[in-house]
Amino acid sequence: MKNIKEYIEENKQRFLDELFGYLRIPSISSIESHKPDMYKAAEYVKAAVLKAGVDKAEIFETEGNPVMYAEKIIDPALPTVMVYGHMDVMPVDPIELWKSEPFEPVIREEKIWGRGSDDDKGQQFMHIKAFEYLVSTNQLPCNVKFMIEGEEEIGSPSLPKFCEENKEMLAADVILVSDTGMIAPDIPSITTGLRGLMYWEVEVMGPNRDLHSGLFGGAVANPINVLAKMIAQMTDENGHITIPGFYDDVIEVSKEERAEMAKAPFNVEEYKKAIDVEELGGEAGYSTNERTGIRPSFDVCGIWGGYTGEGAKTVLPSAAFAKISTRLVPNQDYPKISEQFKKHFEAIAPKNVKVTVKPLHGGHGYVCPTDTPEYLAADKAYTETFGKKPVPVRSGGSIPIISDFERILGIKSVLMGFGLESDAIHSPNENYPLFNFFKGIETIPYFYKYFVELKK
Amino acid sequence: MKNIKEYIEENKQRFLDELFGYLRIPSISSIESHKPDMYKAAEYVKAAVLKAGVDKAEIFETEGNPVMYAEKIIDPALPTVMVYGHMDVMPVDPIELWKSEPFEPVIREEKIWGRGSDDDKGQQFMHIKAFEYLVSTNQLPCNVKFMIEGEEEIGSPSLPKFCEENKEMLAADVILVSDTGMIAPDIPSITTGLRGLMYWEVEVMGPNRDLHSGLFGGAVANPINVLAKMIAQMTDENGHITIPGFYDDVIEVSKEERAEMAKAPFNVEEYKKAIDVEELGGEAGYSTNERTGIRPSFDVCGIWGGYTGEGAKTVLPSAAFAKISTRLVPNQDYPKISEQFKKHFEAIAPKNVKVTVKPLHGGHGYVCPTDTPEYLAADKAYTETFGKKPVPVRSGGSIPIISDFERILGIKSVLMGFGLESDAIHSPNENYPLFNFFKGIETIPYFYKYFVELKK
Repeated sequence: MKNIKEYIEENKQRFLDELFGYLRIPSISSIESHKPDMYKAAEYVKAAVLKAGVDKAEIFETEGNPVMYAEKIIDPALPTVMVYGHMDVMPVDPIELWKSEPFEPVIREEKIWGRGSDDDKGQQFMHIKAFEYLVSTNQLPCNVKFMIEGEEEIGSPSLPKFCEENKEMLAADVILVSDTGMIAPDIPSITTGLRGLMYWEVEVMGPNRDLHSGLFGGAVANPINVLAKMIAQMTDENGHITIPGFYDDVIEVSKEERAEMAKAPFNVEEYKKAIDVEELGGEAGYSTNERTGIRPSFDVCGIWGGYTGEGAKTVLPSAAFAKISTRLVPNQDYPKISEQFKKHFEAIAPKNVKVTVKPLHGGHGYVCPTDTPEYLAADKAYTETFGKKPVPVRSGGSIPIISDFERILGIKSVLMGFGLESDAIHSPNENYPLFNFFKGIETIPYFYKYFVELKK
Repeated sequence: MKNIKEYIEENKQRFLDELFGYLRIPSISSIESHKPDMYKAAEYVKAAVLKAGVDKAEIFETEGNPVMYAEKIIDPALPTVMVYGHMDVMPVDPIELWKSEPFEPVIREEKIWGRGSDDDKGQQFMHIKAFEYLVSTNQLPCNVKFMIEGEEEIGSPSLPKFCEENKEMLAADVILVSDTGMIAPDIPSITTGLRGLMYWEVEVMGPNRDLHSGLFGGAVANPINVLAKMIAQMTDENGHITIPGFYDDVIEVSKEERAEMAKAPFNVEEYKKAIDVEELGGEAGYSTNERTGIRPSFDVCGIWGGYTGEGAKTVLPSAAFAKISTRLVPNQDYPKISEQFKKHFEAIAPKNVKVTVKPLHGGHGYVCPTDTPEYLAADKAYTETFGKKPVPVRSGGSIPIISDFERILGIKSVLMGFGLESDAIHSPNENYPLFNFFKGIETIPYFYKYFVELKK
């Protein structure tokens, strides 16, 4: 790659300025009132790819948020790489914990701070800039397509239909995605597995109004007490999830593969220190990386009910609520899990409350083989720019649409993530190191190069 | 009582207008920003008792909210009745469930609607108007004192000290209180027992920031999952509270007394229908009235943590919180219970979280004998105005200061409550029927009359 380092060095400030404009748009997909921001983000990214050199770019309407699609076809006989990314971001609360405004990006400590700086605007923007480099230096070795959606953080509900309806337009040899992370700042890695997901909101309804906890306490079931007992029952003392049938489709990973995984560098003391906990938790019989990489998990993401203001209010509340998620491993079917959970949660509810289970979204897990041209191309690209071979890892996160791409479009994805665990994605103070941003722009063109060579 | 009915009839509208002015003051004691409203309420009630005919009235500062004290001494040789009440009210959330503004009282369906309409501004105001009647018609048979405080809803933290420091001023033969309820609209009752109370806020702290539930879920203890398990453990499958030593000081009520209690009219179907639940809950082996009247209870009054906004956010939250209360029976010592809870809650916490227990307030329970002049005077007063003998009942509620009055001032209290369960005290849409308000004003003067007669 001719003068890639120089090209980045010369255009650094412009790259950041352009990214910052993107980060300033509060495109939170889970909050309805931010819908106009999704269109702003789509227009912004459309303008960015046009500027970078695509032949055409278009914003497609869906039942939900828009999809920005663009392409540059230089020769139909050459391979086609489709870049997938998302322009939507997570909510920002608890807002009071941010050290700077989530939608006013700043550089501090050699990092970009702001919502979306890593996930996924920052990582996605690397692809636009890498593409710009290839086009402007006349080195683009293949056809390129961009599909940037606006619903990843809410489970991509509209994208499968979009793919069904645009199979021909979306035809490609591989889907290239940067929406995952690296093991450590100096250890490049390729994500070879993703967990699936199922997410519900539950309501436990007791009396028709908040009651006086003195006059009624002890005689009327308290919905918070009940919800706590129900949640407590969902996992046993070994950290196993108790939903009947939940593990039926879980494929046990072989001893050999587990031994291979165990070789990945991991320092448990540093891991604990980074999040400031004295002990970890989880399923008995599995290591920390196995607990997130190859085993499902059960997390209450939010809970609320009764009096949550200042001081004391003696009340027996009318209702209690929780947002509950499970991460699933490949081969677990999220609609089946959703039904199993609903049935079980309703079954364990005592008769003195009414329970409602509302599924919010779900997605399948994914496993990526390590002997394909795309894996090998990614491996060579990292080796070129980092000076060391990348480690294949199973991530605990979910990108539900990845398995849908394979099912609907018949295309495998390669997950070249440049994020770090310390980037605090989904949390206050999300950030993305400048090193990773620029290293990503440097590495991606090599993927194109080696992929085309390996496909010959 | 000469022309009492006529006096009430003639002054009905004025009584309501005066009460409404009091109800419009948002004197919420648990919210610091309402502190100025406590002073407004104190001034309002001071003006009201002066207008009704006391010799002097004064607002006393305490470390917390002010106390309004007033008196009319007609003859030191005569008995003295001290009226106790409180001018502070509960918070109003969830505000969206109110059908009319909580601090803009209105009459609808023959009831006064608004926060404090029953608890305790409405009930307290009956005493001022009954006193006004006795003074203006020259029938006051004894000395009267008023002690109206501003911290009852937060456990009266400053009142014990106020009593200690003003023993002489507060000397009386009985304390007369209307801050409880009647069994049913047509069944007058005298509260002979109150439960004690202990209230805490707990925090379960996990990682130092909200984490991505995919990348960390399954490997890091989730504070909400943990809090749910801890709360679930606090009561067993029979509804017994599991805190070691919790029941040590509970006095089992005799079979005879329980049989006597069981005679009180109670319709379980109507009770369930009123709060719209299909089944009740509570401690095995006890009836509904026993569960609230003679047994302690454990209620989570509020819980919160993680993402509670619209839609789905996949997060493993940093912390989870709950407001927890127990109602205690007479002879249980709340500081001892507080220690037992704290110790137990900390002991059952797994090592992967940090737990903080913050006691907010507490109070002792109370038992009132049924053979004293004050009980008999109240009995005769109700019989006179309702045409039937009142039923002695043990209430599940708490007025912690009542046991302090006995301990510090050596004075027994008599609890003549005119509220109804349907008044929704502490809940949205608190209300107080006009019938009860005016019937209270009519009944109270008879208490004075019979009490003085019985004390002779």
